[in-house]
Amino acid sequence: MQTTDDAVHMKSEGTREEAHLPTIGILGCGQLGRMMAFSALRMGMHVKILTPEASGPEAIFSDVTVGDWKDPEVLREFARECDAITVESEWAPAERLAQVLPDGVDILPYPRTLQLIRHKGRQKKALLKAGLPLPPFARCRSLEEANATAAEFGYPLVLKKYEGSYDGYGNATCDDPLALSDAWNHLSADDGALLEAWVPFVEELAVLVARGTDGDAVVYPVVYSEQADHRCHAVVAPANLPESVAIEAQRISLAAVEAVAGVGITAVELFRLADGRVLINELAPRPHNTGHYTIEACHTSQFENHVRAVMGWPLGLPGLRVPAACMVNVLGFHDGEPHYDAFRPALEFADATIHMYGKNKVRPRRKMGHVTVTADDAETARMHAEAAAAQIHV
Amino acid sequence: MQTTDDAVHMKSEGTREEAHLPTIGILGCGQLGRMMAFSALRMGMHVKILTPEASGPEAIFSDVTVGDWKDPEVLREFARECDAITVESEWAPAERLAQVLPDGVDILPYPRTLQLIRHKGRQKKALLKAGLPLPPFARCRSLEEANATAAEFGYPLVLKKYEGSYDGYGNATCDDPLALSDAWNHLSADDGALLEAWVPFVEELAVLVARGTDGDAVVYPVVYSEQADHRCHAVVAPANLPESVAIEAQRISLAAVEAVAGVGITAVELFRLADGRVLINELAPRPHNTGHYTIEACHTSQFENHVRAVMGWPLGLPGLRVPAACMVNVLGFHDGEPHYDAFRPALEFADATIHMYGKNKVRPRRKMGHVTVTADDAETARMHAEAAAAQIHV
Repeated sequence: MQTTDDAVHMKSEGTREEAHLPTIGILGCGQLGRMMAFSALRMGMHVKILTPEASGPEAIFSDVTVGDWKDPEVLREFARECDAITVESEWAPAERLAQVLPDGVDILPYPRTLQLIRHKGRQKKALLKAGLPLPPFARCRSLEEANATAAEFGYPLVLKKYEGSYDGYGNATCDDPLALSDAWNHLSADDGALLEAWVPFVEELAVLVARGTDGDAVVYPVVYSEQADHRCHAVVAPANLPESVAIEAQRISLAAVEAVAGVGITAVELFRLADGRVLINELAPRPHNTGHYTIEACHTSQFENHVRAVMGWPLGLPGLRVPAACMVNVLGFHDGEPHYDAFRPALEFADATIHMYGKNKVRPRRKMGHVTVTADDAETARMHAEAAAAQIHV
Repeated sequence: MQTTDDAVHMKSEGTREEAHLPTIGILGCGQLGRMMAFSALRMGMHVKILTPEASGPEAIFSDVTVGDWKDPEVLREFARECDAITVESEWAPAERLAQVLPDGVDILPYPRTLQLIRHKGRQKKALLKAGLPLPPFARCRSLEEANATAAEFGYPLVLKKYEGSYDGYGNATCDDPLALSDAWNHLSADDGALLEAWVPFVEELAVLVARGTDGDAVVYPVVYSEQADHRCHAVVAPANLPESVAIEAQRISLAAVEAVAGVGITAVELFRLADGRVLINELAPRPHNTGHYTIEACHTSQFENHVRAVMGWPLGLPGLRVPAACMVNVLGFHDGEPHYDAFRPALEFADATIHMYGKNKVRPRRKMGHVTVTADDAETARMHAEAAAAQIHV
């Protein structure tokens, strides 16, 4: 028979030295997992990482498993001793992990939220059902349905894969029926594809929402998100908007995150139209490129609030602690090994904070790092961040 | 015969995957080494740590050696593949390491600067020689000399060990000859001890200087440093001072760091007197508790500028990016294992940024973490940081 004392004794000997630290498990470790880990570690937490390949960003941490994250045994071992678990992205195998979780340990955001957001058709349907403003869309099961919708919406149109479209991949802007037919052949799946009316937006905005399982939420400032070639290039905070537009953007973002039961950070990408209306483009159920500026610019970074929400802790203040900030992405130029000392010329821009992700392979236009500048005004922040980022040829 | 191709081939196979990252070696890993590492990692660098014991803060990093850091073989292995090496504190065995460094690799700050600053008598002498304002002091070789000096200075006096005094250890305030005699017996070494006149200061200030081997330097804002029981309790930035006093404090701090050829961060602790004069108390040749506020509050943190200087890179802007900030230390309460989830109540103070160092043992008054709040004014920052820190009973 095992006495209570024995049980206590076994626990204190049988677990790692840091067992008294709150432990967060992170499934996946590109730049998002890496920056989540930095936030958790800064608070004195223990971080356990499971990632399917050694891509570099994870290599600096001590408790990392590189393994088959679809294998139930690997997942079970990973989940052991975690107080809570999160995912780096909606593509991590959250559903599989949920099946082997120990009692009392949650995976957050909820796997059902990740599934919903991953499928652009179901995501749109959920947002529409919640009464939120969206560009006109149709879930088409066949090319015939797509052509019928095209006749209704008019060209140009955007056809999107239901699953797996991001950063310009899996999307096609179609100017005529021939282009639509071609895009359909490339992008449609068994359940069809998503067809959207092209929206004549003035600019793209983004709002981050951090939300706990108890429904408590904080909403970050509205930022301006500038795309270049279908990819986030720069983010300026705060967006220079009439107060009524900013508040409306925050209102619909919070409502959208509630509609999908988002927990942790959910990023809401928005279109602002010339008539002042704001429409929801899409959601990401995790820290997001449009929120990297929060590390330097906000009282609580998106990564810390993600960790807080996942751990069931009170959320931190989302507001800016500086007048303005700008983040510019650093993208790869070539194929091969990155040259990390290539960021040295950027250090001459003395107000720039440089983040490099430690990826061990570079590809053209791959996100390799970013630069953030805070300043008294958005124009200065933008100018300096662009200048510094342009110096980095990693 | 080995061809060039072979040599290249061997290099790419024989070294770790991240060999193309700039590598910094850090000797020692309490909270200062840990926060240096965070800064270097954020820039995409590789960090190699050597520490004499597994005390907790180092446990989160992947490339850590726990070993006898006085062993030349251990030091030689540590230095291998480092592009530059620094120390967490003036007590790390920099001189021993210097003897086994590979060609072209520096240890910074210079071992001779560390030696000079470590010995309070030699430190004072160097600063006096540079014409810098100091409290009256004497380097006493015997109790007789100490008594003669006491007769000259008048009581109270402060007797300090030449080496090993910090945070109230190794210092004694003496009100009479009996106390002086007693303190002498406890604190004097073969070469005597340091006797200082007691200075009726109004407040303590601190200034950080970051300086490269080329002499380029940047000077941080003057901060107010509040001690409690001989230990840093709170730091408020910026100190509320007449501009002329602030500039004088920065001037003498920069001159002091030049006088000791400081490289990396050197912290200068200062006394402000009622008559407006500023005197140098002492120097620390490394990131310092009075500079933790820079992580959230300045364009470039003290840890990043230390890394930049050690690597020979351009220095970052030291100025505040916020109107005001306050840092409050989190000290241990008991002896034993820390309860890290004890920081949870502090999270209710939504504008507080909490840093816990991951130490695996707590002792009464040991530095276990700190809290920083930035705000529009110093009073608000101070009030919120005190309130949050007071909630943490680790």
